[in-house]
Amino acid sequence: MVTFINNAPFIIVFIAVFMARATVEEVDSTLPLTNTNIVSAAQTKFGALQGVTLREMFSEAVDKATIHAGIPKKDIQAAFIGSFIPEMLVHQGHTAPLLLDFAGLKGLPATRHEDACASGATALRAAIMAIESGFYDTVLVAGVEKMTSVSTNKATEALAAAADDQFESSIGLTFPGVFGIAAVAHMQKYGTTEEDMALVSVKAHKNAATNPLAQFQKEITLEKAMTPRYVAWPLKLFDCSPISDGAAALVLTSNEKAKQYTDLPVKIIGTGQASASMNLCDRSDLTSFSASVDASRQAYKMAGLEPKDMDFAVVHDCFTIAEIIASEDIGFFKPGEGAKAVRDGITALDGDKPINPMGGLKAVGHPVGATGVKQAVVVYRELIGDAGPNQVANNDTAIMHNFGGTGATCVVNIMRRADI
Amino acid sequence: MVTFINNAPFIIVFIAVFMARATVEEVDSTLPLTNTNIVSAAQTKFGALQGVTLREMFSEAVDKATIHAGIPKKDIQAAFIGSFIPEMLVHQGHTAPLLLDFAGLKGLPATRHEDACASGATALRAAIMAIESGFYDTVLVAGVEKMTSVSTNKATEALAAAADDQFESSIGLTFPGVFGIAAVAHMQKYGTTEEDMALVSVKAHKNAATNPLAQFQKEITLEKAMTPRYVAWPLKLFDCSPISDGAAALVLTSNEKAKQYTDLPVKIIGTGQASASMNLCDRSDLTSFSASVDASRQAYKMAGLEPKDMDFAVVHDCFTIAEIIASEDIGFFKPGEGAKAVRDGITALDGDKPINPMGGLKAVGHPVGATGVKQAVVVYRELIGDAGPNQVANNDTAIMHNFGGTGATCVVNIMRRADI
Repeated sequence: MVTFINNAPFIIVFIAVFMARATVEEVDSTLPLTNTNIVSAAQTKFGALQGVTLREMFSEAVDKATIHAGIPKKDIQAAFIGSFIPEMLVHQGHTAPLLLDFAGLKGLPATRHEDACASGATALRAAIMAIESGFYDTVLVAGVEKMTSVSTNKATEALAAAADDQFESSIGLTFPGVFGIAAVAHMQKYGTTEEDMALVSVKAHKNAATNPLAQFQKEITLEKAMTPRYVAWPLKLFDCSPISDGAAALVLTSNEKAKQYTDLPVKIIGTGQASASMNLCDRSDLTSFSASVDASRQAYKMAGLEPKDMDFAVVHDCFTIAEIIASEDIGFFKPGEGAKAVRDGITALDGDKPINPMGGLKAVGHPVGATGVKQAVVVYRELIGDAGPNQVANNDTAIMHNFGGTGATCVVNIMRRADI
Repeated sequence: MVTFINNAPFIIVFIAVFMARATVEEVDSTLPLTNTNIVSAAQTKFGALQGVTLREMFSEAVDKATIHAGIPKKDIQAAFIGSFIPEMLVHQGHTAPLLLDFAGLKGLPATRHEDACASGATALRAAIMAIESGFYDTVLVAGVEKMTSVSTNKATEALAAAADDQFESSIGLTFPGVFGIAAVAHMQKYGTTEEDMALVSVKAHKNAATNPLAQFQKEITLEKAMTPRYVAWPLKLFDCSPISDGAAALVLTSNEKAKQYTDLPVKIIGTGQASASMNLCDRSDLTSFSASVDASRQAYKMAGLEPKDMDFAVVHDCFTIAEIIASEDIGFFKPGEGAKAVRDGITALDGDKPINPMGGLKAVGHPVGATGVKQAVVVYRELIGDAGPNQVANNDTAIMHNFGGTGATCVVNIMRRADI
């Protein structure tokens, strides 16, 4: 009895966690994804694109993914758009019809999807359902954000709307703070160091150096990454993704139509989405994001695959610690072993499990609503062997992981080359 | 040749319009909707809900649509949320996981959909695709907006983000102005009068007088509606829907699951969505909204029905002129005959084609993101015979019409009682 009482808090936590997981487990969709193909993918350059408006970036990405890829715009039947907060950044809501019109697609059904930094991947997921339901054969997925239109302070204020305004962000907890807290928890529990995080940044910059679409197309040294310019301890300047402008676009089609556009489509064979509490104060563990774990499990289950079957990953590295945690949450490494994998070069472009082979959010940039779509662009390019100097060696199957805000939303997709 | 040259502008316009329509025509989804049922629907009271937060309103609507209706929350597998601009109204983005958590649904996949005033119906449409694709059996659709948290000027500024900021709203064209222009065009082309519009308002208030969830639960006289308090000529105070707080929620299920929850589901048998230019300056006709016409045509085609088969309609009457135009765009009346139908009482609760039988946006209120979901709540309640003093006489089949901003997005759904 004494033992029971001593252990009661743990037992209660265990039961609570078990029940929460049991609920989510039950709702997993086990639908096989059989009909969704990516046949084209493109992005604008990311960066501070002075003088280029929201609609111009969007239009450039759409043109690259359609007419420049031999896909007539008239074939597009509907559009699924991801954008986080254009209302506060460019005072523009109702972006979907506006952007479509400017991109020469006026009249089509078009909706903007928003789940903070996961907005792009939620748009992609809605498009998957639209194809699988038989509503449409060929659709556009696009993400866009124009962030340098306002001051850094204003952008930070806008980004803070992705956390809980009533309970956390209004009292000063901005995103570097959120991920600083996660970093501290990971350091304390697993011994992860500031240098481990800096190594993620060094890798990101190395990969981005050969990516002409990256915001920071240059390598950095470990010494530079360790420069103690703290944004929110222990996160330093080079641990943080930048404020960026940019857009990305995909064309998705059914199996029947895919052959018209390419000999080598990429199939989306698994998808998962989950949410979690917005507040850090409601979480029992800050070293893992439950939405990432849940969404990954759903996607693997739908694809009938496991982490070992993935050749590489594109994960949401808004901060360097986020990449380390994501690499554990998607099952590439055991909890606490993500930092070691970075140190050992396993996640490098030429490692066994490359992560963010084209540079990630950290060095390519993070125009919020575009990011989830851009991640799919990277996976597509790697899978079809179109990544040039950033090509991974093994490119049959990959996973993409896009999360929002404090990790309160996560979308995970598993993709495979159609000839596998 | 002279005749050709004289007619050339008309011929060019004709060809341009024909081509635009032809493009949209081709992309109509002709999928039959066979598996989507509404089994529960609820809304909060609409109005200036002082001291009630966004998450509290949302939670109330969800509770009413789930546990109060005998549907356990654990049965819900995913959530589709409509909200227009909480970023500017309550400084809160990433609302989907936040709202779910507060409503006791933490962990579920949840995305916020935004297409200005059509946000609610775009969320509903995404949910339809989720059910029809087989991803989920039972999902939540909910819409919410908290608008009285800021001054009327701030709310007007936020609402203006639904128009084109770069070309129109930034130079002073707010929404009363947009619909004032449409009213002038309709008056000039068809002889519609200020009194015709006032009669729409009188009808709305009459219907809302017996709706305890309405913001304005009182009748008004024609004389009062004609009081020359102009907001944007020819629209007067009583031609405009109010600024409101509120939430609404639906539970959608597959056929198999529907029987568990109710003996009388409502089936969604047709859905359509279209977009148009945001700018008024790009339109050839201001007396009709092309997105409304296109979305209606898609929905009728999918349902295999015509306007004559509809017993009643719930349309987007953000301004009185919008109801008159919508009644023509959905095919209830020929272009230019909507005003006469109001004068003749055809659209009254006891008329042949009741429109907005519970009071519409004008008198029930217009919490933007909630509106499209609330419209479905009204259709559901009328179809199952649960509208009390607002019950329409014929209630087999109905159409709902929800549009966004300047009419640049429109979603139309056709619903039918499952026992028909």
